[in-house]
Amino acid sequence: MHFAVLIFASVATMTTFALDNGLMRTPPMGWLAWERFRCDIDCTNDPKNCISENLFIDMADRLYEDGWKELGYVYVNIDDCWASMDRDKDGRLQADPKRFPGGINKLARYMHDRGLKLGIYGDMGTHTCGGYPGTTVDKIDIDAQTFADWEVDMFKFDGCYSNAVEQELGYPLMSKALNATGRPIGYSCSWPAYQGGLPPKVNYTQLGQICNLWRNYGDIQDSWSSVLSIADWFFENQDVLAPAAGPGRWNDPDMLVIGDFGLSMEQSRSQMALWAIMAAPLFMSNDLRTISSGARSILQNKMIISINQDPLGIQGRRILKEKSGIEVFWRPLSNNASALVFFSRRNDMPYRYHTSLSKLNYTTGSYKVNDVYTDQTDVLKDSTEFVVSVNPTGVVMWYVSAPGKLQYHPFIRGDKLHRQTYDTKQNNFL
Amino acid sequence: MHFAVLIFASVATMTTFALDNGLMRTPPMGWLAWERFRCDIDCTNDPKNCISENLFIDMADRLYEDGWKELGYVYVNIDDCWASMDRDKDGRLQADPKRFPGGINKLARYMHDRGLKLGIYGDMGTHTCGGYPGTTVDKIDIDAQTFADWEVDMFKFDGCYSNAVEQELGYPLMSKALNATGRPIGYSCSWPAYQGGLPPKVNYTQLGQICNLWRNYGDIQDSWSSVLSIADWFFENQDVLAPAAGPGRWNDPDMLVIGDFGLSMEQSRSQMALWAIMAAPLFMSNDLRTISSGARSILQNKMIISINQDPLGIQGRRILKEKSGIEVFWRPLSNNASALVFFSRRNDMPYRYHTSLSKLNYTTGSYKVNDVYTDQTDVLKDSTEFVVSVNPTGVVMWYVSAPGKLQYHPFIRGDKLHRQTYDTKQNNFL
Repeated sequence: MHFAVLIFASVATMTTFALDNGLMRTPPMGWLAWERFRCDIDCTNDPKNCISENLFIDMADRLYEDGWKELGYVYVNIDDCWASMDRDKDGRLQADPKRFPGGINKLARYMHDRGLKLGIYGDMGTHTCGGYPGTTVDKIDIDAQTFADWEVDMFKFDGCYSNAVEQELGYPLMSKALNATGRPIGYSCSWPAYQGGLPPKVNYTQLGQICNLWRNYGDIQDSWSSVLSIADWFFENQDVLAPAAGPGRWNDPDMLVIGDFGLSMEQSRSQMALWAIMAAPLFMSNDLRTISSGARSILQNKMIISINQDPLGIQGRRILKEKSGIEVFWRPLSNNASALVFFSRRNDMPYRYHTSLSKLNYTTGSYKVNDVYTDQTDVLKDSTEFVVSVNPTGVVMWYVSAPGKLQYHPFIRGDKLHRQTYDTKQNNFL
Repeated sequence: MHFAVLIFASVATMTTFALDNGLMRTPPMGWLAWERFRCDIDCTNDPKNCISENLFIDMADRLYEDGWKELGYVYVNIDDCWASMDRDKDGRLQADPKRFPGGINKLARYMHDRGLKLGIYGDMGTHTCGGYPGTTVDKIDIDAQTFADWEVDMFKFDGCYSNAVEQELGYPLMSKALNATGRPIGYSCSWPAYQGGLPPKVNYTQLGQICNLWRNYGDIQDSWSSVLSIADWFFENQDVLAPAAGPGRWNDPDMLVIGDFGLSMEQSRSQMALWAIMAAPLFMSNDLRTISSGARSILQNKMIISINQDPLGIQGRRILKEKSGIEVFWRPLSNNASALVFFSRRNDMPYRYHTSLSKLNYTTGSYKVNDVYTDQTDVLKDSTEFVVSVNPTGVVMWYVSAPGKLQYHPFIRGDKLHRQTYDTKQNNFL
């Protein structure tokens, strides 16, 4: 009975409740421990890599000293396995005392002193995915208040060890509880990923009202097949997902694995390009102490970051799938600009793709084209036939601008299998 | 009738005929056009990358000037799409006159002047895989003589557009015909790859008698999944394949794609390590004009090349498959040395693998261990418990030496699924 009342109250609330924390008007950027460091708690044998305050201090130092912060990478986010196995005598979560002897608040202040922000992790359920204490419905208020007391800036709410009914209750309640603390705390919800990521099980209107970002799909791994399967899922479901995104509310295809072990340089450029097209949060999960200069230059590319961070916050789309394995992605940007990505699914050799801007639905006119990775520029008429050479599993990415002109015209839907093309008229996404 | 007679003659010949060209006592090394440049014949629009004499001259210059030749990379091998669509008036193959205006003989001399060798490609069948003129049985003698007249040093005989009966006839006949020219020409047979690569369809004893190397399995592509699937097939079938290899006769898992677009640095180190363990031919298919320094240093690693080129020519094996995703590979080498590879199939983070040399079947004693990629050395007793940290999709590779000692003892076969371990007694491979 008690349970039924709670559900009813929650449903009644949802219709009027909206997240209004003013945060994350552009996709959040930073660093997140999970993919690279997982649940390594062996600080005896692996002191440099275990989940401990030293790891987050190391990463904060790198963000602060190596030029990341200025580019927008400001969040330093703890994931699972930070907590003590027991709550304290007052029922509050507490950090593992051996691995976080200074406590979370001290770590938050370390970040703030450097212009960075601290994120933390919890789980809507009896336990976290790694088996640490979870946040059941009765613990939502106290845990939200604990994070606020610790001066945490972001909270990721995972969904292991709970069912759909509990999640439907808990995720909105946590949103309310975080808001009620008075501290601005960005709120990342794993809820849709636990419900298949698609309507009718997932209500994206509601998510936009209660969460700043949400994981729609499975965890990323350090492999190209993982990156590609995630990108495929998001673009195959773009008609559902793209309208959900906007300033303050973002689909999250999960971390950047650039700088780890599994991606080639081409594939790293592709992840960065596709995540920018998707207006995805940019959380790196890598070792910033040892990252290669090649990976760093991709992650620190200013033009691609500015595309990702465009203030309109419109999530881009795949506009073409060619039989040749070339796909074209497009995102409308402010100042009548746009981003184009030519991507190759091929595994043989560079493919010379012939097209023109008019074939990509650009209206009559002249356009300035900046190649995001090579810095080359060109001026193209809409009718100019051009060739882009796209490397296997790689991209060519352009920033396209045409000052003072509207670039897009309504679109005629093409053959669905061979040339899937979408309505690129800007206001269809808004 | 004529056909039946030919088959009979061939079978009668096979039992006594043995390839005795004295070539390729260690696995051949060089460069091969196919994987990277395929059948790009568009010299008008893509002059730097099309299959033409310029491409092979460019690669020869790089091999000669950039330190490759001294390391053993001496073959410059043409693959498909070099020929004119028509034989000449005397029935001989001829190079495409526009793309190879100097002809093949001039190209061979260009190689020989620089201490390099030229390889060429043909197909046992009516057409090559790319649709160029094939070598039917009646053309075997004239084509072998043509290649010898051109002073070619190696010949790859593909198998498109022929059936099993024709192949059983043609591959041995070509071996005989090449030998009959009097010119030493290394002979690469694609035959087993067209017959599934395994007995009873494939007779590895016969192959060792007629070919210097043979493609057992499908074509490699520029992706980690392709490299991994090839390595898996070869090691899963090692009990059949390893005994077939030895000086002058090699299993060929296909080209190195290191330096292309699809492999990370870790994966590149893994391909090189596993190909060295397999005593595989080392034919790079990449663009030596633009290769990165990282890829180059892997391909030019002297210790790993010397392992690949060990004069005993014993093909190594996988000796352990752990549930953790760690696999251990081992190859016996001359001077009582051996090579060990610790490989990780994981896609998460570096794995700390605990073992000892005695667990890997090394006999009692002290061993000197050289890390092939880091150049670090250590001395380990067989009983010393050690930890190797293996990166996702990466390897740790050791050269293990113990002067004056026999290192291996007969082995007790373990649990097949969890810990597949093989008889590592050296003479079991001979």
